[in-house]
Amino acid sequence: MPFRPLAGIRVVDLTSSLAGPYCTELLASFGADVIKVEHPERGDEARAWGPSFFEGGSVMFFAANAGKRSLGLDVKRGQEILLRLVDGADVFVQSLRAGTAERLGFGADALTARNERLVYCSIGAFGREGPLASLPGYDPLMQAFAGLVSVTGEPDRPGVRSGASLVDLGTGVWAALGIVAAIHERTTTGRGRVVDTALFETALALLPYQLTETVATGVAPGRHGTAFPLISPYEVFATADGELMISAANDRLFRILCERTGVPGLADDERFRTNPDRVANRDALLPLLREQLRARPSAEWLELLAEIPVAPVNDLVAVAAHEQTRASGILQEVGGHDTVAPPLRFDGERLVLGSAPPLLGEHTAAILAEAGYSEDEVASLAAEGVIRLIR
Amino acid sequence: MPFRPLAGIRVVDLTSSLAGPYCTELLASFGADVIKVEHPERGDEARAWGPSFFEGGSVMFFAANAGKRSLGLDVKRGQEILLRLVDGADVFVQSLRAGTAERLGFGADALTARNERLVYCSIGAFGREGPLASLPGYDPLMQAFAGLVSVTGEPDRPGVRSGASLVDLGTGVWAALGIVAAIHERTTTGRGRVVDTALFETALALLPYQLTETVATGVAPGRHGTAFPLISPYEVFATADGELMISAANDRLFRILCERTGVPGLADDERFRTNPDRVANRDALLPLLREQLRARPSAEWLELLAEIPVAPVNDLVAVAAHEQTRASGILQEVGGHDTVAPPLRFDGERLVLGSAPPLLGEHTAAILAEAGYSEDEVASLAAEGVIRLIR
Repeated sequence: MPFRPLAGIRVVDLTSSLAGPYCTELLASFGADVIKVEHPERGDEARAWGPSFFEGGSVMFFAANAGKRSLGLDVKRGQEILLRLVDGADVFVQSLRAGTAERLGFGADALTARNERLVYCSIGAFGREGPLASLPGYDPLMQAFAGLVSVTGEPDRPGVRSGASLVDLGTGVWAALGIVAAIHERTTTGRGRVVDTALFETALALLPYQLTETVATGVAPGRHGTAFPLISPYEVFATADGELMISAANDRLFRILCERTGVPGLADDERFRTNPDRVANRDALLPLLREQLRARPSAEWLELLAEIPVAPVNDLVAVAAHEQTRASGILQEVGGHDTVAPPLRFDGERLVLGSAPPLLGEHTAAILAEAGYSEDEVASLAAEGVIRLIR
Repeated sequence: MPFRPLAGIRVVDLTSSLAGPYCTELLASFGADVIKVEHPERGDEARAWGPSFFEGGSVMFFAANAGKRSLGLDVKRGQEILLRLVDGADVFVQSLRAGTAERLGFGADALTARNERLVYCSIGAFGREGPLASLPGYDPLMQAFAGLVSVTGEPDRPGVRSGASLVDLGTGVWAALGIVAAIHERTTTGRGRVVDTALFETALALLPYQLTETVATGVAPGRHGTAFPLISPYEVFATADGELMISAANDRLFRILCERTGVPGLADDERFRTNPDRVANRDALLPLLREQLRARPSAEWLELLAEIPVAPVNDLVAVAAHEQTRASGILQEVGGHDTVAPPLRFDGERLVLGSAPPLLGEHTAAILAEAGYSEDEVASLAAEGVIRLIR
């Protein structure tokens, strides 16, 4: 039986960019009916985030909008339409600037007063309180502000941003978790919840032990390149033709590494006997290993070091083509393009992303008809530019 | 009313390290009763992952084990005890090496045959299928293998690992989402699900648009330092005394940036008129801006550029002390230490992490008594070393 725990749940989605749309794409993959509300002219700004485009939007738009229906609606002039949809919905999600939803009449108090079963989710930037609550926020800005940049990069060079949009995507997953948990609670209480998430908080939650340690010691962690700082050797080594991440995380694995790389004596060297020794004397240890590892190509090392956790540093061409990626079934065709499905399986079956991301306004007519608007009303709203129809 | 959607749900938790424990800490924060099953002598290996330690374990252990009870149990010799607990549980989570749970008698088929309401979650490395299914996996290894390292770092230097354990933590959140969704479905179907997650899949899911683009074009994305590659200027600039991430994401913001930094003519320069122009000519643009921004300290720029999205590159001492962090309430005292709570609020209230991480075996006696074991039986199991008691 397909896993559709949110079948029958209707989501009114007033989000744009990446975090909010990723959240509601997940809800759709769980079986919810997601109505993506977009400005009738501009649509979700992410549709324009090139450089690459598919039909209906950018690749980035494709990555977060499968399985939804699009309603082209000017929510300022068509406020009543949105309110009628929310009255019949289970979930409302918005990622507007702080205060905007309230000003438009879509604040949590207003909507939950109309529909006490509604789960109302805000996706914010810095969160609802504090001196920065009114500022906008974006993934790269948050990587800098919340300290992710400070711990990423080479020790003697400036920090860098992770190339992944991890704050946006992470916030989308947290929002989905909060919403599903609130929907579940509602089966007992009959009431929804106001769920608050924020990019800033997601970024902090990516550094839990580092923040706890910093508060306890007053010392900020540094940057370690590819290395995991508590264990040595545990970092990337250049080979004759590539790079390998090698993790000799205990004394037994270190001995195997020394033997296979032709320097068995290192395992008995008192500077390198235990992991704390190796961490303390890493500056002496690493050049010796680097010299050995440079001597052969990666494929030979992968065979020689099969007993040790070792992985090549793959680029995305290699990752996309790898048999392990294919076997996972995580690349799923959506609208003719390979798209990354959620990393979850239920009874062995992967979640299905469903239909291709909608064209702007593709489902306006159907959604308004379901909400009880007559054909004449729809035609006149379209003539006024309050809604966008695609015929 | 506190948000406890999993009140009454019992979780038997056979995970260790970071991903699995983070998942079950989240379930505990939702109100579940989490029984952390640990080897009676060694305990969760993360207890020993220093360098810093609090009472009962390392800082890393503290970051993922609040609100749980610890059962010190040798699951090989005490298999019957674990099975009895699972018979009365709602959720079973394990992160053992592929095949180990099955060998010990705790595979999905065996446990769901005994308890059809059980939600069974596996946290794997490379996933259940494919040529690498049997290999172990760790966060840094996955960052290398799945391509995160390849897109992180400076363009002309080797890739680096994100300093955040984003694959481990992300997998924990995905697992929690899958489990909560399956618990919710069970209210309708009366049956549990087998939920599969994997570190490798989490890592792939952090690169959704990059992977789609790579498959479509055959070209792997490169590294961009601190820059967001689709928009310029959108990266870190050095100031007289620090670093600022500056995002002039549209023409209006770029014009303001040029005026405030004393180079208003740049906004009318035809090389820099639109974002595509600026991206194409970034090598000409950036040195001009860098020179201006180096002239004043960060605090002055933050005032001058208040209309533009700008953020300092904070280290974790600054982040931990920031009023915005304090206002979020996300730092929560657990066992006397500031710990990062989940980035979710419900009706304005943050989730509560609850009691300090348990000592190894702290709740063995209570858990076995609840399961119907007599005091004599418990004493004899302890004498045989099958369980660990703390008195």
